[in-house]
Amino acid sequence: MKVGIVGAAGYTGEALVKLLLGHPKVELTTVTSRTHAGKPLSKVIPSLRGADQGLCFVDSDPATLAASEVNLFFLALPHGAAATYARALVAAGKKVIDLSADFRISDLETYERYYGEHHAPELIKDARYVLPELTSPAWQTEAGLVAAPGCYPTSILVPLVPLLKAGVISREHIVVNSLSGVSGAGKKAEEMYLYVERAESAKAYGLAKHRHLAEVEEQLALHSGAPVVIQFNPHLAPMRRGIATTITVPAAKPDIAALYAAWEAAYGDSPFVQILPSGETPDTAHVVGTNRVDLSAVYDPRTKNFVITSAEDNLIKGAGGQAVQIMNLWCGFPETAGLI
Amino acid sequence: MKVGIVGAAGYTGEALVKLLLGHPKVELTTVTSRTHAGKPLSKVIPSLRGADQGLCFVDSDPATLAASEVNLFFLALPHGAAATYARALVAAGKKVIDLSADFRISDLETYERYYGEHHAPELIKDARYVLPELTSPAWQTEAGLVAAPGCYPTSILVPLVPLLKAGVISREHIVVNSLSGVSGAGKKAEEMYLYVERAESAKAYGLAKHRHLAEVEEQLALHSGAPVVIQFNPHLAPMRRGIATTITVPAAKPDIAALYAAWEAAYGDSPFVQILPSGETPDTAHVVGTNRVDLSAVYDPRTKNFVITSAEDNLIKGAGGQAVQIMNLWCGFPETAGLI
Amino acid sequence: MKVGIVGAAGYTGEALVKLLLGHPKVELTTVTSRTHAGKPLSKVIPSLRGADQGLCFVDSDPATLAASEVNLFFLALPHGAAATYARALVAAGKKVIDLSADFRISDLETYERYYGEHHAPELIKDARYVLPELTSPAWQTEAGLVAAPGCYPTSILVPLVPLLKAGVISREHIVVNSLSGVSGAGKKAEEMYLYVERAESAKAYGLAKHRHLAEVEEQLALHSGAPVVIQFNPHLAPMRRGIATTITVPAAKPDIAALYAAWEAAYGDSPFVQILPSGETPDTAHVVGTNRVDLSAVYDPRTKNFVITSAEDNLIKGAGGQAVQIMNLWCGFPETAGLI
Amino acid sequence: MKVGIVGAAGYTGEALVKLLLGHPKVELTTVTSRTHAGKPLSKVIPSLRGADQGLCFVDSDPATLAASEVNLFFLALPHGAAATYARALVAAGKKVIDLSADFRISDLETYERYYGEHHAPELIKDARYVLPELTSPAWQTEAGLVAAPGCYPTSILVPLVPLLKAGVISREHIVVNSLSGVSGAGKKAEEMYLYVERAESAKAYGLAKHRHLAEVEEQLALHSGAPVVIQFNPHLAPMRRGIATTITVPAAKPDIAALYAAWEAAYGDSPFVQILPSGETPDTAHVVGTNRVDLSAVYDPRTKNFVITSAEDNLIKGAGGQAVQIMNLWCGFPETAGLI
Repeated sequence: MKVGIVGAAGYTGEALVKLLLGHPKVELTTVTSRTHAGKPLSKVIPSLRGADQGLCFVDSDPATLAASEVNLFFLALPHGAAATYARALVAAGKKVIDLSADFRISDLETYERYYGEHHAPELIKDARYVLPELTSPAWQTEAGLVAAPGCYPTSILVPLVPLLKAGVISREHIVVNSLSGVSGAGKKAEEMYLYVERAESAKAYGLAKHRHLAEVEEQLALHSGAPVVIQFNPHLAPMRRGIATTITVPAAKPDIAALYAAWEAAYGDSPFVQILPSGETPDTAHVVGTNRVDLSAVYDPRTKNFVITSAEDNLIKGAGGQAVQIMNLWCGFPETAGLI
Repeated sequence: MKVGIVGAAGYTGEALVKLLLGHPKVELTTVTSRTHAGKPLSKVIPSLRGADQGLCFVDSDPATLAASEVNLFFLALPHGAAATYARALVAAGKKVIDLSADFRISDLETYERYYGEHHAPELIKDARYVLPELTSPAWQTEAGLVAAPGCYPTSILVPLVPLLKAGVISREHIVVNSLSGVSGAGKKAEEMYLYVERAESAKAYGLAKHRHLAEVEEQLALHSGAPVVIQFNPHLAPMRRGIATTITVPAAKPDIAALYAAWEAAYGDSPFVQILPSGETPDTAHVVGTNRVDLSAVYDPRTKNFVITSAEDNLIKGAGGQAVQIMNLWCGFPETAGLI
Repeated sequence: MKVGIVGAAGYTGEALVKLLLGHPKVELTTVTSRTHAGKPLSKVIPSLRGADQGLCFVDSDPATLAASEVNLFFLALPHGAAATYARALVAAGKKVIDLSADFRISDLETYERYYGEHHAPELIKDARYVLPELTSPAWQTEAGLVAAPGCYPTSILVPLVPLLKAGVISREHIVVNSLSGVSGAGKKAEEMYLYVERAESAKAYGLAKHRHLAEVEEQLALHSGAPVVIQFNPHLAPMRRGIATTITVPAAKPDIAALYAAWEAAYGDSPFVQILPSGETPDTAHVVGTNRVDLSAVYDPRTKNFVITSAEDNLIKGAGGQAVQIMNLWCGFPETAGLI
Repeated sequence: MKVGIVGAAGYTGEALVKLLLGHPKVELTTVTSRTHAGKPLSKVIPSLRGADQGLCFVDSDPATLAASEVNLFFLALPHGAAATYARALVAAGKKVIDLSADFRISDLETYERYYGEHHAPELIKDARYVLPELTSPAWQTEAGLVAAPGCYPTSILVPLVPLLKAGVISREHIVVNSLSGVSGAGKKAEEMYLYVERAESAKAYGLAKHRHLAEVEEQLALHSGAPVVIQFNPHLAPMRRGIATTITVPAAKPDIAALYAAWEAAYGDSPFVQILPSGETPDTAHVVGTNRVDLSAVYDPRTKNFVITSAEDNLIKGAGGQAVQIMNLWCGFPETAGLI
């Protein structure tokens, strides 16, 4: 099976390229970049020297890609741009896994409030938001295209959804604090992201208005059957990769065992969710380079809250790795193919 | 006036040494370290080469220090050890500013629950916990010795106290997440604190049981006239210094102006508290090396919470700098002497 | 085929474990650690959660290992300790690849001058020092055990050996400066290696007496047929992994083409040596995680020197990866098995 | 006395601003930036919140500055731009200390080969290159304007000049390797300088053609009375500030004492040069934030070389601090005013 990546020169694209070059079931045949068209992969991604299988970047328009032999495309494009490619590729019968925000939100109005005009609204109804550990398998037959979850949302939804469904936590006063490595901002040549500015620096940003909120709250509501409003406080930490998320939420009952039981039921057999003992906290350094989310929680008798922690690699489980996991399921490959 | 530092070879001690060597009103004459006794300061703190004023570390017992000409001592010792020195020095009529936890908690039982046996309980009643921007000046005449606040508590109390007193925030559902640089753990030769382990790594730790809780909640209750219970989630971030604290708390009224008014009233003239416009968040990189706390806040209409952010240098405003500020007030020096 | 790692809890051991767990031709069945005996691999190497294939550390003496079914052992032990295990394992007919210094030096006296007493001197004559790209294949049949090269030596020998043999560089005035990430020092809980001490810090160390000198000079002499004395200046840089080496050497002829021709002849077909165009310098960030050495060189007409640069991952091509490459050749597997 | 900084929004400008705001003998009255004109200093340099003395950036042309009351200007501008300002300010009788390369090179042709057209060549003859520890005091009366040394050159000239003059080292086969923090590249919003690209990355750059060569070799020749050609290999290391330089040079005599004696004679009384015992190497972390250069050396009997190491803060002793030191001498202030 032939796969392609549209917009492969960014940090997410690079993570995808590496996973797909090593994937036992697919052949990566097309890799696009407007900026780097014509260059060998390893010129732009030097860690691939000697291992880029002779691939070069191409600058390809939607029509040409639609006419190609590629069976499945990953879109690693900015929101807005992705929708345009999706329209052409879906029309040509290609499988499309979109890593942008364009199809993560089912309500057009909500999308446009956060992201501006949508360039392929007619596709929204056939798009499926797929977080493999949470989305029920029906998507594998229904989906016209798949929206892969965002990095922050993955680190929030994986711990929270089973707990909301099991009713072990309150739906109110949910406070989410996340720390992200700098690659989360993308490969942007801006002063704020210079080494000298970010090294030895930690700060909150995007308070009370981060775009990932819409996606997180829609999924929480969908899975738990009622609206959920959360406080989401993202932070930048001086590291390249990784997201550490800490969630404070009132316990429905003072019963940490019930919380762990809900996780065990949801993830006991999941290769990509590791449940740590209460009191042992996830560390981004332990998940970077993997497709895992590590989870842990404690009950605080003083506050009657659960404090829930998760860690993931924002570019793998938070982006490229999860997209490959989605492809594996969609195409009937082993879920872990190319990922462990 | 002659000052001394007991236990000056750690990270806090080093910060104190540098501030006091440059202080216009005092002479640093005594610097103790059991490990490094006999060595010149600059052998242990190489950044002081050519600037250590010929001082050497001494290994001095409480009695000898009590008999010395030094007028004021800073104790930069582990809790437990500090109390023993405090007893001897206070008895000898020395002014003592303790940077350990030994005199931060007025209730002996609470202290011993968190820290174990107290070695000078009789001094607790005459000790005063002094956060200069918050503690009313009476301490300057009453204090037998002064307990300087902890690093995390400073970053939490400065933003919260005026808001609780003004009634602009709820006393319930207060969630505090803090990120600390690795120096907060002290100069401990343990695997966990090795460069290779901490670089590129972020994680929560000490959830639901961090020792600073007792101190923070006692002060919040003291200032606001009623018990306050908070959720405190500390994290390690891969940087040497700095604490970034993010506090989520329900707003009493949806009025960010009222919050800022309370801060302005409390800190409008304070040289060491900088109030940033709503939407501009403090950054640890902007306060490291200063005695400042930077503050900001936003109101989130979706959650009806305020999200409050602060940043400080854990070794200066969170430790040595604040201790010097206390000395300045206690001795009638300009508050900013040696600090700006 | 069954393989084992003796001393697998250090940084090199961890790199080996990960490579061998993913290796298509071998089964990792035995992993030893005195400190962590009894613990699952993933307790000590949390990045392996869910992927440690149920392995636990054992504390095994040489005799027990000698009696086991394991066919090949990697020794990731300190020098001195390795020799003792090598003696027992070789006697039992096991293949042994030693990553310590114990068998890198053919002259016992030289070894003992740098490292102290040798615990299995009788094995030295049958041991072979194998840098796969440079050592002629005879070792594959002759070797009683194999000494894998050190991290610094690999980054120096790969660029220099073909140039000395081709006579394109002087054998005099060779100056080698190397920067190493902190993992090169091993997992040592010492103040010097704490995050706070090493972050934002660069310094030379071990000048004029680094142990790797003996190994480098013996190999240079062996390959070039005459003694070579080099200046080796190692440095610590604030990063976890990677070695960047810069070599200044007088050119035999002012002919950069001749230098590149010698490299092409030696490494044109090598999967693990990448030759960069003159003027494009290797970057440790581009080789970390790979088994590569990247090479480049410029001619400086002002000084008549070549300036030669190389980069590698000190834990992979500089240790565990190269050891796996050696195993692949020794056991008749494809050279790149488990490495690309 | 009133001083001004032209081009104060870069990293060097920021270092200068902080030193001059705290300087006991001068008043910083004018700070220019085209980009940030009109903004308070602390808006652009947030670490100055509450301490920027109410100063705002202005966008001022040479004529306006020439007509101002400012007595002395620091030029922290790119080469080329600096010359134009220098011409106007010198003509108006202002003291000018230029931190760019425009007046570091006495030979116009050499300058233009490295830097392109010179915009005020007529000023070169009256300009003096001043490295305070090395330049004989005559400059203080002769200088029409002063060229402050570059960051790399300072770290090379301070160790080498006394040794060349004393004849304890060879003038041939001098090999200089330097590691610089990323701030050395200036505040450039380019992909290469992004946090994600530089963290955990070390590499050589600018081999055989770095612009600082011309300056270093001119000064070495000037001080030692004969041409000196060096190999200069600069490297980027993942840190914000600091330069560590390692120099390998054949010893004239195998006598480390003679080398130290030459340094003692040159720097014994110098407040800003610290001579470390042989075997103890300078560390950038120990000099960052100071105006110091730390020096050390070893003799290698195997190679008959001296290996000489130095460390400095590239933004202080390598730029702003040295410029302030020059001002102190030029204006008759204590040499250490505002620097210790």
